[in-house]
Amino acid sequence: MNKPVSNEYVHALDRQFVFHSWSTQGNLNPLVIAGGEGCTLWDYEGRQYLDFSSQLVNTNIGHQHPKVIAAIQEQAGTLVTVAPATANLMRGEAAKRILSHAPDTFSKVFFTNAGADANENAMRMARLYTGRDKILSAYRSYHGSTGAAIVATGDPRRVPNEFARGHVHFFNPYLFRSEFHASDEEEECQRALQHLRRVIECEGTNAIAAILLETVPGTAGILVPPKGYLEGVRSLADEFGMLLILDEVMAGFGRTGSWLALDNFNVVPDLICFAKGVNSGYVPAGGVMISQPVCDYFDNHFFPGGLTYSGHPLAMAAIVATLDVMAEEGIVDNSRRIGQELLGPGLRALADKYPLIGEARGIGLFWALEFVSDEKLKTPLPAPVMAQMKAAFQARGLLTFIVDNRLHVVPPCIVSPAQVTQALGIFDEVIGEFSARHAH
Amino acid sequence: MNKPVSNEYVHALDRQFVFHSWSTQGNLNPLVIAGGEGCTLWDYEGRQYLDFSSQLVNTNIGHQHPKVIAAIQEQAGTLVTVAPATANLMRGEAAKRILSHAPDTFSKVFFTNAGADANENAMRMARLYTGRDKILSAYRSYHGSTGAAIVATGDPRRVPNEFARGHVHFFNPYLFRSEFHASDEEEECQRALQHLRRVIECEGTNAIAAILLETVPGTAGILVPPKGYLEGVRSLADEFGMLLILDEVMAGFGRTGSWLALDNFNVVPDLICFAKGVNSGYVPAGGVMISQPVCDYFDNHFFPGGLTYSGHPLAMAAIVATLDVMAEEGIVDNSRRIGQELLGPGLRALADKYPLIGEARGIGLFWALEFVSDEKLKTPLPAPVMAQMKAAFQARGLLTFIVDNRLHVVPPCIVSPAQVTQALGIFDEVIGEFSARHAH
Repeated sequence: MNKPVSNEYVHALDRQFVFHSWSTQGNLNPLVIAGGEGCTLWDYEGRQYLDFSSQLVNTNIGHQHPKVIAAIQEQAGTLVTVAPATANLMRGEAAKRILSHAPDTFSKVFFTNAGADANENAMRMARLYTGRDKILSAYRSYHGSTGAAIVATGDPRRVPNEFARGHVHFFNPYLFRSEFHASDEEEECQRALQHLRRVIECEGTNAIAAILLETVPGTAGILVPPKGYLEGVRSLADEFGMLLILDEVMAGFGRTGSWLALDNFNVVPDLICFAKGVNSGYVPAGGVMISQPVCDYFDNHFFPGGLTYSGHPLAMAAIVATLDVMAEEGIVDNSRRIGQELLGPGLRALADKYPLIGEARGIGLFWALEFVSDEKLKTPLPAPVMAQMKAAFQARGLLTFIVDNRLHVVPPCIVSPAQVTQALGIFDEVIGEFSARHAH
Repeated sequence: MNKPVSNEYVHALDRQFVFHSWSTQGNLNPLVIAGGEGCTLWDYEGRQYLDFSSQLVNTNIGHQHPKVIAAIQEQAGTLVTVAPATANLMRGEAAKRILSHAPDTFSKVFFTNAGADANENAMRMARLYTGRDKILSAYRSYHGSTGAAIVATGDPRRVPNEFARGHVHFFNPYLFRSEFHASDEEEECQRALQHLRRVIECEGTNAIAAILLETVPGTAGILVPPKGYLEGVRSLADEFGMLLILDEVMAGFGRTGSWLALDNFNVVPDLICFAKGVNSGYVPAGGVMISQPVCDYFDNHFFPGGLTYSGHPLAMAAIVATLDVMAEEGIVDNSRRIGQELLGPGLRALADKYPLIGEARGIGLFWALEFVSDEKLKTPLPAPVMAQMKAAFQARGLLTFIVDNRLHVVPPCIVSPAQVTQALGIFDEVIGEFSARHAH
């Protein structure tokens, strides 16, 4: 590192030595980031960006929160790592705090490195607890990219990775592109539940260990479930002796304007998976919150899973500090208030203004704009156009999260009214330009 | 955290809230660890332990190395996390340094959170690169606990987790308990290669994407392969168009007295998986080193895998500092020298002295003592006796790593001659006592 650090140097180093996720490697042009603070990131040439992606929807407390950074630095100086078989102060404190935000029936936490292995272990627990093999999950879902997690995942990234068995997929509710020919939320909900019941009957009412579901499917399009849907899924799980696993990896810890996304609904699952927001991804960590009956089962049954960095002290210290800071600074309230009062109404106004936006939907600071080239046919705006739009946002200093034909609007949960107003202005300007060119 | 921190408090917190890896939860009694330095750990009551486990064989540079701790603290203050799609200084520097220790044909690194997902992604790359489905791996192996990794794993922890397909297992060489009725290393090697060839022929010479093998199988018993075995496996891989993936998660980065364990053999694989020693586990990280032909393939083929914390800046900073410190302080040389001159001879002398030790084997600071209740029949010493032995070591202030009927002797690679002498003395004392009671 004797060479001067510049955008050019870091970019060249990356292109020479680093292999990237979810990409063809030959044509990558990664953005160089040197540092950040709050909702802002910058490069080595002083160019600043307003982060409305929260990176991969994880930095819910924003970048470089001083109290959490200090806690990480302090833990690094005390005990940076220790084996999971030991008892560790920060691990216990982290588990205690996490469980304080879970329903009363939850009593222990199993820690993992991230969201994928949280889902892996939740599925393992469900299979062992029920003695059943199959896992039901939704086509419109993303649950991670390890062997079982990627096959539980419903989105097309599953297809080249189908090397795990026993995974069955169903259609989850999505009124804007209803699989059930429904005309309103209530009908979508009823028909989606009827469809799920039929899949269960056809796959074997005694064969299914668990239903795995994102409380609010995220990468799939921020699909807030209709009123009554999750309650209906819970009731099907009970009827057929299946566990209900809620994946809160992206939706949990402030994103939806409540501590957990499930707080927005009247549902209590058996297992809850988390990662990302639990410590804003400051140190890699994830885990499974486990309800009492499942804990009881494993009191005298061996649990055949584990990992070297389960309950890693540095990650645990980041969780403790993050959850304390979120409570002290009212970050969850900010997410709900800004979402309800400013971001949601602002995005809905844009959807009303531009036919290029097929729908604006979301909750808290978890919103999506779905772009269509034909309002009536709902034809998705093509990927190259979406890439141009992302570049146009970036050229105006706004970092966004684009998936397929959608802009996911997911700023840090500490975002200020002024920053939301600034971003809405850039959205208006860029979408206006693209509407002139691409709306039919 | 207003209560005073004591062993009792931390233990109680753990038992109430934390779910543990690879355990029945009801009867756990985890050791409380408060801090550490070098090869020493301590609890809240000032009781000290000499760590001859390196936790889960990961803290190769010992506990709390001041330069690596400082690098983590500095990176935390600069940019603690950023999305993998960006270009990041520490990520590039880490990849560059890692590749400087790989064979010349290696040109990029894909970063993961740990070893399991390193193996997951190497298998994914091999399957896509070859267009084939099956993965061959050894019965005596451990490759991680996620969906595909745990089914690639050969040890019995695989059995309750077999939900991934296309995994076939073969017997790897292990002269002490030969599957091939061999009487010396050369015969074991030849017969093991002949067996592998037969498995390939029977599974389909065009059906197998890769052979996945720990360079030196670790958890399975520190099974240093006989001279010529890995070279023979490489030649079979070439003959049948399969990739060779070497899992260096436990054996890599100093453990065997060389930078990579493969440096001890005359073999160049196609993919190398790493984690643990690369940054001593100070921040969770792992990855895959990728050889040029596989890199070329993915220049114009999409790679369908990824993860939020791929190339996490904090983990990357720990890698850069760890590899620099290992080079500057001659830690790899220390591992080789202490292993050759002191630890290896000391353990072999114990094996000669006590019939309770069936075999002492290893390389560098990667050694195992295999305990038998009957020297001739090689009957494994029962698990409850091994647990008592572990407790006896711990009562004398020595932390050990026990698997089945084996004591794995795996101190940090910075261990001093005095510390090795101290540990050998405790081994002698405790094994002497157990010999009096358990040898037949």
